[in-house]
Amino acid sequence: MSHAEIIAIGSELLTPFRSDTNSLWLTAELNALGIAVRRKTVVGDDELFLEETLRDALRNSPVVITTGGLGPTEDDITRKVVARVTQRPLVLQPELLDRIRHQFESRGLKMAPNNERQALVPRDAEALRNEYGTAPGIVIAEGDRLLILLPGPPREMRPMFTAYVRPKLTPLAGSARLRTRTLRVAGMGESQVDDLIAPIYTRYTNPTTTILFNNTEVELHFTASAPSDAEAEALLDEVVGQVEEVLGVNVFSHRGETLEQIVGLRLTLKGYTIATAESCTGGLLSKRLTDVPGSSKYFLEGVIAYTNEAKTRLLGVPAELIAEHGAVSAEVAEAMATGIKARAGTTIGVGITGIAGPDGGTDEKPVGLVYVGVAGDFIVTHRKFILPGDRDRIRHLASQVALDLVRRTFLL
Amino acid sequence: MSHAEIIAIGSELLTPFRSDTNSLWLTAELNALGIAVRRKTVVGDDELFLEETLRDALRNSPVVITTGGLGPTEDDITRKVVARVTQRPLVLQPELLDRIRHQFESRGLKMAPNNERQALVPRDAEALRNEYGTAPGIVIAEGDRLLILLPGPPREMRPMFTAYVRPKLTPLAGSARLRTRTLRVAGMGESQVDDLIAPIYTRYTNPTTTILFNNTEVELHFTASAPSDAEAEALLDEVVGQVEEVLGVNVFSHRGETLEQIVGLRLTLKGYTIATAESCTGGLLSKRLTDVPGSSKYFLEGVIAYTNEAKTRLLGVPAELIAEHGAVSAEVAEAMATGIKARAGTTIGVGITGIAGPDGGTDEKPVGLVYVGVAGDFIVTHRKFILPGDRDRIRHLASQVALDLVRRTFLL
Repeated sequence: MSHAEIIAIGSELLTPFRSDTNSLWLTAELNALGIAVRRKTVVGDDELFLEETLRDALRNSPVVITTGGLGPTEDDITRKVVARVTQRPLVLQPELLDRIRHQFESRGLKMAPNNERQALVPRDAEALRNEYGTAPGIVIAEGDRLLILLPGPPREMRPMFTAYVRPKLTPLAGSARLRTRTLRVAGMGESQVDDLIAPIYTRYTNPTTTILFNNTEVELHFTASAPSDAEAEALLDEVVGQVEEVLGVNVFSHRGETLEQIVGLRLTLKGYTIATAESCTGGLLSKRLTDVPGSSKYFLEGVIAYTNEAKTRLLGVPAELIAEHGAVSAEVAEAMATGIKARAGTTIGVGITGIAGPDGGTDEKPVGLVYVGVAGDFIVTHRKFILPGDRDRIRHLASQVALDLVRRTFLL
Repeated sequence: MSHAEIIAIGSELLTPFRSDTNSLWLTAELNALGIAVRRKTVVGDDELFLEETLRDALRNSPVVITTGGLGPTEDDITRKVVARVTQRPLVLQPELLDRIRHQFESRGLKMAPNNERQALVPRDAEALRNEYGTAPGIVIAEGDRLLILLPGPPREMRPMFTAYVRPKLTPLAGSARLRTRTLRVAGMGESQVDDLIAPIYTRYTNPTTTILFNNTEVELHFTASAPSDAEAEALLDEVVGQVEEVLGVNVFSHRGETLEQIVGLRLTLKGYTIATAESCTGGLLSKRLTDVPGSSKYFLEGVIAYTNEAKTRLLGVPAELIAEHGAVSAEVAEAMATGIKARAGTTIGVGITGIAGPDGGTDEKPVGLVYVGVAGDFIVTHRKFILPGDRDRIRHLASQVALDLVRRTFLL
């Protein structure tokens, strides 16, 4: 399989505040073409380091892609350093200059002189049109190496890659096709999942299996390489099929969809409606449900009842029930679910009550204690969780287990 | 100022699914010591590329930090490659082996033989104790270079850096101290901010100024370098003071706090309470308000009224008002704010209604149209916004402008 390196250029990417995300998108695109990424580098606006990084990359990899440093200011050094590394003088391309000047004029602006720099292209290189900005991309065929310079802003870089770079890379990709598949798992920890599926995936080197835990759910990524898409898919089917069988209903998503998308899809298919009653999650559950476009078909309303008084007034939870069991209890979680279902007139009601911390925990009811109640036409039930982590993680996990309880109770 | 390179090792970091975040944390730590990061590299479990990357880094930078690849499996190649690059044979350290075996036994596990590998350390190198895992870190003084190998998991890497690496780097840092300050701005775009403050910050090379736009707000990062913390702070005061003056109340945060933290802080100081009535944001506004620990002091309740019927039943918005002006209108936004304030009995009520898309827009009321209403004891008002972007961004921007309208109306 062919391989590539990606170099992100810009001093702001060497601060604690910003990371290079272009390379993730580019990696997905390259992988889809059967090109693996072997190394990624971030350098600042620093001629010495960029020069050495470019030389190394061109020595080691048939495809080198840079992002950033093509703008009009002194800091934008990519053109200059590439000219030096490839020993090609920069040549002003008059038609590029016209185009850039025209882009300014069409917005009623006068082009500042430093923008002329963006019309400089190394000799015998090809300029790539930028539909969404002024800095053109540049492609240089250097012996059997392909050096591709793209602008940094994603809204400029992505369309340029798709329109002009992808077609150039397709012949390089050779015969290997890469296909990936993603499973998402709820209700199990990373090591629990690994114990169950390691006996399967360790028997295969193709596809490769990556297990990730993203704080709330386990993600399984499978990548197969084969001479054709169909053969790669067949390799995936064989391993993923066995993994799905072992994990059963714990796998909620087979094509990478989120839990809220899956819940929304199943609610729509069944013609069900849902309403939420939240305490410790403070709106996160309904936020996730309504993240999904078209959720107004099944999500009717939600209530965030932080105070006991609101639980009684908005949800009809009896004050005596709260007094007897406490606001964080199985009884109140079920009463919240029943209450919101009755008042909203939905098929399903969900209630969450818990202690997200950092304060408010006791020995008996510690931080992380969460009760989720669900109510349907024929069933009212709850589950108790002790969730780990800080406030943020506890709240996110609580919304996750609530969505998953809805899925397992009503939507399988 | 001294400088460092960071190398992240692991093939999973070259997939589209995962990025290296350790380097952001490490960069903040190094900067605080007066050490700049000049280059960051990600390599896979790939001996050739790692060897070359390490050689280049040691040639160019006095401090080289790697993360990852120190585990017990065949894939964990860092030790082996470092031994080759530094020409130091790997030596088994019996006391390390005892410690690792003991860590397994204390958890009732038998140590698998491949874990012995973790007790191998290049000759004359120093092993760093790992309190939260089995892989020790390693420090090698190679001439005037310092090569530091840290484990990949953040919960192991961070405490190890703090306890053992930071003290070793402090003398290297020399006399320069780096101090940073962050301002956050609401209600203005990136270029609008830049136009106002460029005349100030371009007059200074120290501190440096970075302007970031994170989709909902503008962040300004200032970094000053000086022989002492006090001098660096004085440099910051001079520039940041001028910037604050020009931007006025648009700066909502002077030490990096989020908008919801600032709103929460001011609500607490004034003894105010707040309740929310949301439509298109679907719970995001109340989610953000309750992200803040201790928010139960001022956030009492919220309602997500997706349907017109719920707006009337839960918030008392007259059905005729909705019929006359439409659910997405200034009148309904104000009525939602007034309604939730009255029912919850809070000092402040906020209402949001809008069209988050992707469907539901019309020529007259396009996707992105959002009305925010706020109601206090003496004032009821609203603002209209046409917000750009996709559903996700529109919803996030809507919660942002709502929080900011609360701040500007009641909390200055």
